[in-house]
Amino acid sequence: MKELAIVLVSGGLDSCVTAAIAKEEYELAMLHVNYGHRTEKRELKAFEDIASYYGVKHRLVVSIEHLKQIGGSSLIDRNMDIPEYTLEKKRIPSTYVPFRNTHLIAIAVSWGEVIGAKKIFIGAMEEDSSGYPDCREEYFKAYNHLIALGTRPETHIEIVAPIIHMRKAEVIKRGVELKAPLHLTWSCYQSDDIACGKCESCKLRLRGFTEAGLKDPIPYKSY
Amino acid sequence: MKELAIVLVSGGLDSCVTAAIAKEEYELAMLHVNYGHRTEKRELKAFEDIASYYGVKHRLVVSIEHLKQIGGSSLIDRNMDIPEYTLEKKRIPSTYVPFRNTHLIAIAVSWGEVIGAKKIFIGAMEEDSSGYPDCREEYFKAYNHLIALGTRPETHIEIVAPIIHMRKAEVIKRGVELKAPLHLTWSCYQSDDIACGKCESCKLRLRGFTEAGLKDPIPYKSY
Repeated sequence: MKELAIVLVSGGLDSCVTAAIAKEEYELAMLHVNYGHRTEKRELKAFEDIASYYGVKHRLVVSIEHLKQIGGSSLIDRNMDIPEYTLEKKRIPSTYVPFRNTHLIAIAVSWGEVIGAKKIFIGAMEEDSSGYPDCREEYFKAYNHLIALGTRPETHIEIVAPIIHMRKAEVIKRGVELKAPLHLTWSCYQSDDIACGKCESCKLRLRGFTEAGLKDPIPYKSY
Repeated sequence: MKELAIVLVSGGLDSCVTAAIAKEEYELAMLHVNYGHRTEKRELKAFEDIASYYGVKHRLVVSIEHLKQIGGSSLIDRNMDIPEYTLEKKRIPSTYVPFRNTHLIAIAVSWGEVIGAKKIFIGAMEEDSSGYPDCREEYFKAYNHLIALGTRPETHIEIVAPIIHMRKAEVIKRGVELKAPLHLTWSCYQSDDIACGKCESCKLRLRGFTEAGLKDPIPYKSY
């Protein structure tokens, strides 16, 4: 019998490919976290679609709307604008949600301790992404140390970030190889009907498909 | 002007004394987290009473009921019994909530990044407590490393655990010295009107007062 792994599935492209990679070795459990961000409804649908595509029974959907209560990010604060992204890395963008991944992974660890999961897969990317501090390999290493210290002695859960050093184009190619359901994913930060094509998330995705020499299977308002 | 520190205030004795210690050097912000545990209503009252006693304006009350959804602890699962505690340390008790402190501190860090706090005070105790893995100094050290890596480069937030190596009796004496409002605190895991005097938390508290040669200002059903 395969060991159980929890995959953090936002509904986006990266986590979908991460699930496809995890699927090769593990039985999957899928966790989706709503942190009060703009396009949550559409992302939840993507999560359910991806989970069904993989026939996943262990599903957990959790709401941590206190991140919205706390604010400090254009992704969850409607008084702040989502920047039209230039893809130049100058500083951490306003879409950064303070310390967000720590919350997401903590939920996965608590759940993992109860259901007996051995791994937590996360689709974070260090170089080819938005430059969020909590998406770096060093951060996940430190988190693994924290898990070892902060859980029962008999618990052994480890974070795995299989696409951490990939470029978006590689992730897309890998996803296509593994038959990941990219057509079911949602990446846009701005809209929840047709992807805007202009926000940082859309631009990173579109650039990835261009570099991969492939066509994105989802429609866009504009490029 | 004093720097801002967030104190995690459960409403119990330890966090109350921790607040009194933090108050000596910092302007206080107080965070209370409801994780769906049995005596939450009574603890929330204690939190508000303590925050008012210290004239705290920055208050945040957050609900993370998903810990209840996840389960795995007698503190949040009504199908499990709260053990009558022997005060003998054999194994991690069933009241352990998987990875709980990681969630609590993550909320404090996210809030701290937005309001500009420099410290997070937590009233954890390593030796003289229930033996939870996420109450050890080593765990907090690892967490400080995670905070440094997982937040903006300009953010400098550090966890402080000032009573980590104290015994309960010392905490009580220190609280009395600092005029901490111990009469407003709530420790019982089992009941929310009059403390049971039998659960592990009551027993640890009562033993502390006895060792300190002081009388607990709150009433008990039985000893």
